Amino acid sequence: MKKLHFTDVEELDVKDYDSTGTTIRWLITKEKDGAPNFALRRFEVQPGGQIGLHNHKQEHEIYILAGEIEVITETETYLAKANDVLYVPPDEIHGYKNNGDTTVSFLCTIPYL
Amino acid sequence: MKKLHFTDVEELDVKDYDSTGTTIRWLITKEKDGAPNFALRRFEVQPGGQIGLHNHKQEHEIYILAGEIEVITETETYLAKANDVLYVPPDEIHGYKNNGDTTVSFLCTIPYL
Repeated sequence: MKKLHFTDVEELDVKDYDSTGTTIRWLITKEKDGAPNFALRRFEVQPGGQIGLHNHKQEHEIYILAGEIEVITETETYLAKANDVLYVPPDEIHGYKNNGDTTVSFLCTIPYL
Repeated sequence: MKKLHFTDVEELDVKDYDSTGTTIRWLITKEKDGAPNFALRRFEVQPGGQIGLHNHKQEHEIYILAGEIEVITETETYLAKANDVLYVPPDEIHGYKNNGDTTVSFLCTIPYL
């Protein structure tokens, strides 16, 4: 068993996918913790910040902790807020944009494939 | 992409492991959503509630959303509160007890093995 507070983990700027105003903390990983199958990450997106459209073979399971964020796919736009849950299937194009006045935080789990 | 609110998912009593005062919502699953590698669940443990000691081959990656809960292993006891993160490795004995006055909620991801 390992216990930590999310702020114990280094906060890194997200630079991929034309992202702006977005940070990531890799809370639980294979490298750091020996987690064999998936990693738990916590994102923060500042007002006006975004993660640009992208896709990859790994699915996402997401839980919104705070704030309200626009989630964009090729065909639809969703407004997701605290206590909403998102499932992004493998290979689906997706992106995020914070059009609100408050910081958005969300958890996102991704498999090691 | 699929979006839902956690309350859209049926809340079920946890009956295994001598559990009391504890419910689970299977937020994202293989069966319901086609998620291939892991399931996202949300637990609530009422004051005085518990999940008894148990173990299994699947690891857990846990994020505490609200409240304060005692997490017990064979060798140690942890007090975990909102925004704490727990990693329970495969096969490790673990249990939970809410000794506080408020409901505890936490997310727990588990692989399909």
